[in-house]
Parts: sequence; C-alpha cells; structure tokens
Amino acid sequence: MGSALLPDLGTEIVIPVCAVVGIVFSLYQWYVVSRVKVSSERGATSPSNNNKNGYGDYLIEEEEGVNDQNVVAKCADIQNAISEGATSFLFTEYQYVGIFMIAFAILIFLFLGSVEGFSTKSQPCTYNKEKMCKPALATAIFSTISFLLGAITSVISGFLGMKIATYANARTTLEARKGVGKAFIVAFRSGAVMGFLLAANGLLVLHITINLFKLYYGDDWEGLFEAITGYGLGGSSMALFGRVGGGIYTKAADVGADLVGKVERNIPEDDPRNPAVIADNVGDNVGDIAGMGSDLFGSYAESSCAALVVASISSFGIEHDFTSMCYPLLISSMGILVCLITTLFATDFFEIKAVKEIEPALKHQLIISTALMTIGIAIVTWTCLPSSFTIFNFGTQKVVKNWELFLCVAVGLWAGLIIGFVTEYYTSNAYSPVQDVADSCRTGAATNVIFGLALGYKSVIIPIFAIAIAIFVSFSFAAMYGIAVAALGMLSTIATGLAIDAYGPISDNAGGIAEMAGMSHRIRERTDALDAAGNTTAAIGKGFAIGSAALVSLALFGAFVSRAAISTVDVLTPKVFIGLIVGAMLPYWFSAMTMKSVGSAALKMVEEVRRQFNTIPGLMEGHAKPDYATCVKISTDASIKEMIPPGALVMLTPLIVGIFFGVETLSGVLAGALVSGVQIAISASNTGGAWDNAKKYIEAGASEHARTLGPKGSEPHKAAVIGDTIGDPLKDTSGPSLNILIKLMAVESLVFAPFFATHGGILFKIF
Amino acid sequence: MGSALLPDLGTEIVIPVCAVVGIVFSLYQWYVVSRVKVSSERGATSPSNNNKNGYGDYLIEEEEGVNDQNVVAKCADIQNAISEGATSFLFTEYQYVGIFMIAFAILIFLFLGSVEGFSTKSQPCTYNKEKMCKPALATAIFSTISFLLGAITSVISGFLGMKIATYANARTTLEARKGVGKAFIVAFRSGAVMGFLLAANGLLVLHITINLFKLYYGDDWEGLFEAITGYGLGGSSMALFGRVGGGIYTKAADVGADLVGKVERNIPEDDPRNPAVIADNVGDNVGDIAGMGSDLFGSYAESSCAALVVASISSFGIEHDFTSMCYPLLISSMGILVCLITTLFATDFFEIKAVKEIEPALKHQLIISTALMTIGIAIVTWTCLPSSFTIFNFGTQKVVKNWELFLCVAVGLWAGLIIGFVTEYYTSNAYSPVQDVADSCRTGAATNVIFGLALGYKSVIIPIFAIAIAIFVSFSFAAMYGIAVAALGMLSTIATGLAIDAYGPISDNAGGIAEMAGMSHRIRERTDALDAAGNTTAAIGKGFAIGSAALVSLALFGAFVSRAAISTVDVLTPKVFIGLIVGAMLPYWFSAMTMKSVGSAALKMVEEVRRQFNTIPGLMEGHAKPDYATCVKISTDASIKEMIPPGALVMLTPLIVGIFFGVETLSGVLAGALVSGVQIAISASNTGGAWDNAKKYIEAGASEHARTLGPKGSEPHKAAVIGDTIGDPLKDTSGPSLNILIKLMAVESLVFAPFFATHGGILFKIF
Repeated sequence: MGSALLPDLGTEIVIPVCAVVGIVFSLYQWYVVSRVKVSSERGATSPSNNNKNGYGDYLIEEEEGVNDQNVVAKCADIQNAISEGATSFLFTEYQYVGIFMIAFAILIFLFLGSVEGFSTKSQPCTYNKEKMCKPALATAIFSTISFLLGAITSVISGFLGMKIATYANARTTLEARKGVGKAFIVAFRSGAVMGFLLAANGLLVLHITINLFKLYYGDDWEGLFEAITGYGLGGSSMALFGRVGGGIYTKAADVGADLVGKVERNIPEDDPRNPAVIADNVGDNVGDIAGMGSDLFGSYAESSCAALVVASISSFGIEHDFTSMCYPLLISSMGILVCLITTLFATDFFEIKAVKEIEPALKHQLIISTALMTIGIAIVTWTCLPSSFTIFNFGTQKVVKNWELFLCVAVGLWAGLIIGFVTEYYTSNAYSPVQDVADSCRTGAATNVIFGLALGYKSVIIPIFAIAIAIFVSFSFAAMYGIAVAALGMLSTIATGLAIDAYGPISDNAGGIAEMAGMSHRIRERTDALDAAGNTTAAIGKGFAIGSAALVSLALFGAFVSRAAISTVDVLTPKVFIGLIVGAMLPYWFSAMTMKSVGSAALKMVEEVRRQFNTIPGLMEGHAKPDYATCVKISTDASIKEMIPPGALVMLTPLIVGIFFGVETLSGVLAGALVSGVQIAISASNTGGAWDNAKKYIEAGASEHARTLGPKGSEPHKAAVIGDTIGDPLKDTSGPSLNILIKLMAVESLVFAPFFATHGGILFKIF
Repeated sequence: MGSALLPDLGTEIVIPVCAVVGIVFSLYQWYVVSRVKVSSERGATSPSNNNKNGYGDYLIEEEEGVNDQNVVAKCADIQNAISEGATSFLFTEYQYVGIFMIAFAILIFLFLGSVEGFSTKSQPCTYNKEKMCKPALATAIFSTISFLLGAITSVISGFLGMKIATYANARTTLEARKGVGKAFIVAFRSGAVMGFLLAANGLLVLHITINLFKLYYGDDWEGLFEAITGYGLGGSSMALFGRVGGGIYTKAADVGADLVGKVERNIPEDDPRNPAVIADNVGDNVGDIAGMGSDLFGSYAESSCAALVVASISSFGIEHDFTSMCYPLLISSMGILVCLITTLFATDFFEIKAVKEIEPALKHQLIISTALMTIGIAIVTWTCLPSSFTIFNFGTQKVVKNWELFLCVAVGLWAGLIIGFVTEYYTSNAYSPVQDVADSCRTGAATNVIFGLALGYKSVIIPIFAIAIAIFVSFSFAAMYGIAVAALGMLSTIATGLAIDAYGPISDNAGGIAEMAGMSHRIRERTDALDAAGNTTAAIGKGFAIGSAALVSLALFGAFVSRAAISTVDVLTPKVFIGLIVGAMLPYWFSAMTMKSVGSAALKMVEEVRRQFNTIPGLMEGHAKPDYATCVKISTDASIKEMIPPGALVMLTPLIVGIFFGVETLSGVLAGALVSGVQIAISASNTGGAWDNAKKYIEAGASEHARTLGPKGSEPHKAAVIGDTIGDPLKDTSGPSLNILIKLMAVESLVFAPFFATHGGILFKIF
C-alpha cells in the first residue's frame, strides 16, 4: 500500500502551526479594525491607519461629520447598547444550554456505558475481532468528554464572532463617512476575524483532543475515533440552540420593529424612535453571527469526525498510519493558509472604490479561494496519502487510489462554488430573478409572494444536482469516507466563507447605527449598498451551510449504519419506508414550530412597541427616548422559551425512534429528513434573500426599471416590504435551522448507535 | 389454501351490476336536479319537486325573486356563458392532449415491443419459468390499448363532471332563494352525479377490458394484468393535463380577477363588471371539477392496476382464482353500494335547515360512509377470498390470511377518514387554527402569510403519521398488494368523497351567478356559507387525493421494482441515493413551474382587465358590458401553453432517468418524489384552504372575534384577501398537481419497467 511522504512527526507539527497561523492572522485583523476609534476623544480614525493600509485619500469622498464628536459619541453609545444586549442574551441562552449540556452529557455516559453493562473489561474490537479494544465504558467517558469539548468550542466560536461583530459595527459606520470602500474593508476584516478564529480554533481543539485521547487509547484507534464523534455532537447540539434561539430572537425583533415602525407609523427602518430597534440590531449579532458560527463549526466538526471514524476502520487506522489518518485535519490546515492568501486579495491586493465593485469583490473571494484550494488539496493529497489504500465500505474494504480521494475533496469544493454562484444568481438584485420578483410587486403583495416562493423552489434545482453529482462521485470512489471528505472540501474554505458571510450582518448593523446616530442619508446609502451585497453573501453562506450539511449528514448517516451493523437500508421494507416518509415530514414540523414562534414573539413585540408609542409622550416627535431594554427582554425571553420545543423535536426524535423502532426505521428517518430538509432549507433561504433584495432594489432605484417601481412608500414598495417581512423567518430562522436538524439527528444517531443496536427497537421486539 | 365463497360466475355478474346501479343512481340524481328549471317560461322550480322530496314549506324562508323572470333569464345566460367557456376550453385541451395521447401510445408500443425485439413468439413467463406466456409484443399492443382506454375514460369522467357542474350551478343559485337547505341539496346531488358516474364508469370499463383481454390471454394472467397497467397510466396522464391545465386556467382567472377587481377597483368578487368574472367561474369547473375528477379516477385506476398486477403473480393468479383476483374490483363495487346508502342520509333521511348544519352534514357523510364501508369490506373479504393465500413479496411468496387483508383495506379506509378530519380541523373556520390565522391579519398581510405557511406545515404531521401507519400495517401483512388494497380502501368511498368535493366548486359558481345576476345579498350570504363549507370539503377532497396518491404510488413503485427485477432499493448505494435526493427536488421544480405559470398568466389577465376598464366607456358604471370572451381566451391560451413544461417534466423524468441511469436510480427518484411531494401537496392545499376560509371568516363576521377583524374593506380584511390570493395557486394548482406527479412517474415506470430493465442505464453501462 505504500506510505505517505509526510512523516507522522511532521503532521504533529504542521496542523497546530497552521492553526496558530490562523489565530495570529485573525488577531492581526482585529488589531487593524481596532484602530478605527469609537471613542469621542480622538475622532473617527487615526490617519496612520490609512497610510499603513495603503489607501490614498481619493477614497475619502467626503469628510462630513468626521470631527463631529457628538456623532461619534452617539455611535459608541449605540454600539454599547447592542453589545450589552447581545452579551446578556448569549449569557442567558448559555445558562439554559449549559443545563441541557450537562443533562445530555449524563445521558451519553449512561446510554453508552450501558451497552456492555458498565463493564471495565477490554473487549474484542468491532471490526477486527482478533484485537482487543478498550471497554465500552471508556468510549462512554471519552465520548462525554469530547461532547463537552465540542459544545464549549462551539459556544466560544459563536461568542467570539458576536464580540467582534458588535465591535466592528460602529466602526464600519464611522468609516462609511469616508467612503464605501473604507467601510467595506472594516466589515470584511471583522468577518475575517471570525472566520479565521473559528476555523483555527476548531482545528486546534480537535487536534489536541485526539492527541490527549491517544495517551489512553494507545493503539485502539477504533475506540479513539468513536469517542471523538462526541465532538461533532457537542458542536452541533450547541449550534441547534444558537441557530434556533438566535433565529427567533432576531426575527421576532425585526418583524415586530417593521410591522409597527414601517407599516403603521411610517418611520424608516432603524429609526431611533422605534423601541425595538436595539433588539433588532442585537438580533443580527446573535442570530446571523453567533448562530451561523456555531452552525458552520458544527458542520466542520461533524465532517471531520465522520471522516475520522470511517478512516479508523480503514487501512489508515488498521495500519496506524497517523499522517493519512489526519488527512481531514491536514485539508483544514491547508484551508486556513489558502483563505489567508485569499483574504489579502480583498484587503491588500485590490481596493473597492465604488458600490458596484462590492459584489464582484466578494464573488472573487469565492473563486480565488476555490481555485487555490484545488491546488492545496492536490498538495495535501500527494504528500499525506499513500498512492493506494483501502476504505471501509459497509463491511468490505474498498481499494482507493490517492487521485480518487483528491477528486472526492475537489468535487465537494467545486459543488460549494456552484451552490454559491446559483445562490448569488437567485438572490442578488443584479440579475433577472430578483428583478422579476420586484416587478411583480406592481400588482401587489400577493403576486410578490407567489413569484418569490416560485423563485425559491426553482433555486433548488441546480444546487441539488451539484450535491447529487458530488455525492455520486465521492460515494463511488471512496464510499462514506469520500462523502465526508467531500463535505470537508466544501468547508475547507470556511474561513473565507464565514468572512463574507459575517460581513453581511455587520453591514446591516452599521446601517442601523448610522440611522440611529442621525447621520446623513448619504452614509445610509453606502451602508445600504454594503447590506444589499450582505444579503446575497448571507444567502451564499446559508447555501454553503446547507450543501455541506447535506454531505455531512450523509457521511454521518453512513457511519451510523456501519456502527449499527445494518447491512442495507432497503426502502422497500415497511420499517425503513415509514421512517423515510416520517423523516421527510420532520422538516415541516420543525419549520411550523419555528415560524409560529417567530410570529408569536413578533406579535408580543408589536404590542410592546405600540404600547410605548401610545404611552410615552413625545416619543413619536423624538423628544423622549423609548424603553429599548423591555424590547430586548421580550426577544430574549421569547426566544429562550420558544427554542425548547423545536430543540426537543430534533434531540428526542433519534432517541425515540432508535429506542422504540430500532435502527432500520431510524435509518429511514435520517434519509427522509436529509433529502426533504435540504430542499426546504435552500428554498426558504433563497426566497427570503430574494424578497429582501427585491425591496432593496426598489429602494435603491439604481435602474430605470427600479425607479418605475419606487420610491419608498409607493404601492409596489409596500408590497415589497410585506414580502421582505415574510421572508425574515424563512431565511433567518426556519431555513438555516434545518441544516442543524438534519446534521444533528445524524450525529446523535451515530453517537448512540451502539446503544440502539443493543437495546433499541423495543416496540418491534414486543410485537 | 381453500377457495372463495363467491363463484367466478357470481363475480362476473356482481361487478357490472354494481356499476350499473351506480350509473342509474347518478342518472336519477341528475333527473332530480334537472327539475329545477332555469328557463324563464316556468319560473324557478316546479312545486311538485318540493313535495316529492318531502320538504315542507317552512324551508322556504323567503320568496323574493321567485317569479322574477328577469333574474332567471339572467341566471340562464350566465350559466350558458360558463358552460360554453368550460366546454370550449376542454375541447381545446383535449385536442392538444389527444396529440400527446397518440404520440405516447406509439412510444409505449415501440418501447415495450422492443423488449424482445418485436418477436411474436411466446416466451417463458417472468415469475414462472416453466409456463409459456404471450410474447412481449402482445403486452406492447394490449398495454397501448388499455392506455388509450384509460385515457378516454379519464377524459369522459372529467368532461361529464364539468357538464353536470355547469348544469347545476345556476340551479343552486335559484334554489338558494328558497333557503340554504334547498341550495345545498341541489349542489350536493350534482356532486353525487359526478361521484357515482366516475366510480361506476371506471369500474365498468376496467371490468369489460379485463374480460375482453382475457379472450386473447386465456390462462396467461401475468401478461394480461401487466397489459392492464396501461389503463392506470392512461388515466393518470390525462389527469396530469387536466389538473395542471385546469389548475392554471382557474387560478390565472381568479387571481387576475381579484387583483384588479377587489384590490384596484374595489368592486366585490364576481361582480359582472369585472371582465374576468366568467373566466373565473369557468375555471372552477375545469380545474376543481374536471381536473379533480380525472385525478381521482387516475388514483382509482392505478391502485386497481397495482393490486391486480401483484395479484396475478400471487396465488390468486397462479391458481386462476378469478373471484379472488377481482377482489380490488369487488371492493370498489361494494363501495358504490355503500356510497349510495350514504348519499341518502344527506338527500333523503335528513334535512339541512340552517347554515351551521352544512359542515356537520358533510362530515357525517364521511363518517357514515367509512363506518358502513368497514362492514362492506368485511363482507367482501370473507365471501370473495379464501381464508389463506400467498402474495408475491419481492421474489418470495408470503402467506396471508383473509383477516389480514381485511385489515389492510380497513386501515387505508380509516387513514382516509383521519386525513379528512385533520384537513377539516386545519381548514375550517370553525376551529382555532384558521381563526388564529384570521387574527394574525390584525398585524397585516405578512403575519397572515407567516401563520398560514406555518399552519400548512403543521397540518402535515398527523396525515403523515396516518399514512405511515397504513403503510406499515398493510406492508407488513401483505407487502405491495397490501399497500395497493389500502389505497383502494381509501378510495372505496370515492363516490361520496367526490360528491362532497364537487359540491364546493358548484357552490362557488352559484355564488358567482347570484352576484352577476344581481340577486339580493341575502342570497349571496347563503351561497357564501355553502362555499365556505365547500372550501373545507375541497381541502378534504385534496387530502384524500394526496393520501391515496401516496399509497398508490408506493404500490406502483413496489410493482415496478418487482417487474424491473431489482432485489433491494438500498439507500446507501450512490445510484439510489442520488435518485432519492433528486427525486425529492422534483416537486419543488414542478411547483416552481406551475406557480410561475399562474403568476404570469394572472399578470396577462390583469393587463387585459385593466385595459377593458380603461377603454370601455361606462363599464365601471355598469352601463356597458365587458368583453368576457377575451378573458376566457387568455386563460385558455395561457393554460394550454403553460401546462406543457410541467407536463414534460413529469412525463420525461422517468424516461430519461430509466434510459440513462437505470432502474436503481429510478427507484430512488420515485421514492424521493413520493416522500417529499406528499408533504408539499398537503401543506400547500391546507395553507390555501385556511387562507380562503380566514378571509371568509372575517367577511361573515359570525362571532364577536370575527367582527373585531371585519368588515369587508378593513385593514385585516385586506390582509386576508392577500393571503387568499397567494393561496389560490398553492391549493388549486401546484398542490393538487403534485399527486399526479408522484403517481404518474410511478405508473409510467411500471409500464416501461421491462424496457428499462433490458435497455436502460446507458450512462452507467458506458462508464
């Protein structure tokens, strides 16, 4: 079989070094952002910052307000309020989630420990009966530990993302006074901080965990990497609450603020008189930033774990080839380096000079990172893998060549790019689909909604074909290992993906701060332009998240099937088929819950906002300050309360199905939820993105056609606002949460597979 | 194994007798309806009619306009216009469909004939190699013939339904002058005409075809019933065009009429000044009546064919037990008798005296027919089946007891009832879900849409569990045969189901005619009450159609797998999985097409209506008549043109997948489309129904709560109208068409299975 070029010691050095490089790079970006001052003492920005970054003065289109200490102070105040709201929400959320985490950790320990009756004796390995493996109790203990590590890393990823985002929002606003290019660079750098921190942290913690666990497990890699799967479960279960809780928070505030502010009171978005405006801006940070961060971290952790667990029972694991074993981590390490270079293209090699350059710049990030990463994958593949090896394939060992594995990773990477492009096409107002939706606003909100829904449905087609091709290629070449590394391929440019994704909510916040601080409408136009591009990148980010979730879930599903010792998942058996159809229903159930939650929470918000407008004298005239804190509290309470039922649905389904109906039905459920959920997730997120940008298209009035529909306040614009409001829960709550539904059920099934295989299927055993 | 109590000769007599009884009963109902006169010579109705039906005069709440010849003449005119529009559309549609039918018939002949190279030699049977079966060429010829027969029967079913509906609408209006009970009975009887004609016709044609084919096939039942599957394909492919074409027609007209009439011009629904009003009323007849009729006929034909083809290779077929073989037809025969008795409960045993009795009366129809049918199934099962027999189960023969088969049919029947109840709960404005949606209109159209979508998603849960349980029970007891007879069980009360379903559009039309004829608003209130109940029953009808489609497709899918000689459909093989995920995407693609079609056609309609309002002097004031014909033409042309792409998607997918990717991938596609399509179909149809009734709830103002939201023209009412308009294409175009997508792809695969198994999978053969 040959062996890898890179020695094992090299692997032990390369991975942490790349992780540390990523962390240092992100700290450097943070430092650059921090040089935009938001304290009133020193004005807006230090001149040295400009020179250092090589910007000429020509970018500074105007200087209005640069020295207006009052505006800067206001921005600082608003930033503080947002940051405090977000921090307090996350702390509240983490308290509840902490309780869940401990309870679930105990459950993992008990369930997995009970497989061999808490015996401390070594046992024959599952896939190699001649060797002795560590006892099931050890797997239980170490799975629990890695679960907790995954959960904590996920929480930290989300929290740090939120911190940098709330740190950057006001800075972006202030830079917007000097031009759109300046503002863009601040927002983008801040996004990069988050992207690199998350990618590097995830890699580093995983690497350290593997090495520490190895001290106990020694040669028993089968047990070692089974225990590591807990890391994915931990990451994903935190992501569930981050996505769902954050999603409900942000959209309850957003919808509530819009319904009273824009529709009833006819005041602009983000107007400081609107009591829900701070809650709305907090929401962007806890939902789109912290939630998204946890989600993508979860995908990353899960696909790594799925690849590792399959590799441990393939020739890599059997022959104890550590470098090859760490192939998934090496791909991620290379990803950090590639993304680092890619980021420089946006921050240092080129400059944004006009609004119309923003979207292409972000798109180039995708293209550059994908192109470079293709080379990166080739390098990693040829240096870290033997030319030929075997991969476990449902009971048999399949011979795989290194170039085949290269194709698996590359097809995932390029499928991600295609999904990104298609998403951009369907959600950017530069193309005809969104313009058609905007045009349909002529005949009112109803046609807008019909066209928007149709757009979302249509936008599913190409991504599904891309995912199907990626699955077919990687599945055919390297079975479940192929799928897992294809997912990793798609996620290998995660740092760049997150950077352009986090850029969106930061710009959104920047616009809000500009409005609240009473800055001129030219500033607002610039932040709006950033935000419109941000809607598209947010949709692209969601596209990546969904695409990778589909691949990850399939890989986890495959690993589950192997671990549960099922030979086939035959649709034409009653146990599997009922699982399939019920599984396909779960995304609907889940979406119904989350959408209803947003609706109910928004209604509460509406009542509070109306109450404040009616009872606080002088509020509408701007003489009195609204009570922002109450609105923040409503969103916090509602989201904490409302995240429990959908969370329970996701967490309990695999347990109930596994225990009562057994592993065959559970296989059906996983497959059904996967193939159905991915469609709703893509269509919901694109429909919402398209409606948002159709509205922005009319507001911006940048073309002849757009001007016939506008201006703000016209009938078509009102129809567009309705579409935008409907799209909010679709694109930011129910749609993206579905990724987690499909991933989490799969990884949970994988972790509990030995328990279900031993004790599950009670109902069928009785009858 | 024993044999059935009923001798074969008895079966040959019982089936046609029951069919003829059904036809006679429906003609009798037609005769009763015809005694309401719509000619101006004799006034509204002959007094003898009242006496004959045993109604006292107390039902005649008022006599206003009974002798107003002018109103009657107007009604007659409008009825003529609607009838002519519907007839002309259907003829145009049938011309195009006729061409398709012939082309597809040729395709069937060529593909199936080519399996054995058009050889005329007998060949060993597929499932019993010792016996000789008729040549593949014979199967090709007879499949083509039965395809044409199925198609023609489907067309006749749809056409007759439309005829009676357009015959009954004005009669319902005229009877509404005498009270809501009278109007109800006319609408309901007319629905029954359609229900019985369709059920009896379908049964009779199938029976005759089997007997004629037997003259050639003799003892080769395997070949005989393979050829019969063409009947299901014919029925379903006509249904596709009926549903899609009719669905686009009706909603283009409806949405177009509403957008200009209600929203822009602020004139009531069905106002005669609206140029699209006739097209709108025509649409109800071609979409909800003719389309629905073809759809349910298709389900009926397919489930019979699926059961027969499996039975032919089970002990029934092997032992040539004709009575047992005809079990599916005997169930349907019993269904006709049961529905006949059930109908008498609504028409003769009880009377409707008030608005609030309408919904319970319709609901009782469901309950009575289900309860009686349970007994009916027991009778048929114990008289027509031996106590024990074997059923073909993917290569093996499974021993089944007669009581097990009874449970299979009964579980389908009762699952249908549960689906009916759940649908009623989620779409009737007597319960909290619709009231909550109405309440959400307080905060505008956006919350209305969010709550409506969430309601639709939620309404999927219980029906899916019901379907899953039905599948599990019937699958476990009698494999694919069990599923097929479960579907037949659900459809056994089709005559009653269609009666209460067709009642809806007839009432809708009656309301339209009342408005156009300028009758008093009390009449309109009555027809509106009938119509509100009709929305619920239409949703129930769609629920049945979807539920049965799910079962039918699964049965057909199973038959396809058997016929294509695949042993397992393992999700964890790349070929199957990519099929599964792409199949799950198809309903989205299809919905995107149909919704966009409705949107575009509606926009054309809007332009024409606006043009007429702007260019015809005196139209708005009611001095001039609008040009109805142009609007009818726009709807006709648009629907004919727009039905082609979605039709092609459905018809070509199995061919392309089968030929290029082979039977495994096709299996995946069928399973994916089934489990995903059924969810979208249920949620779309319930969301639409709920929005429609939320609007009606506000308009009717029957409760304290409803009055706080109304009256017509209030802000909440406007929001409700937007929801209603969005729901139109969901509930009447894309949602119900999805049934046909999943059924048709399955039956088409079944018919072409031998061809795909022999010549398919070219792509994988090349690589």
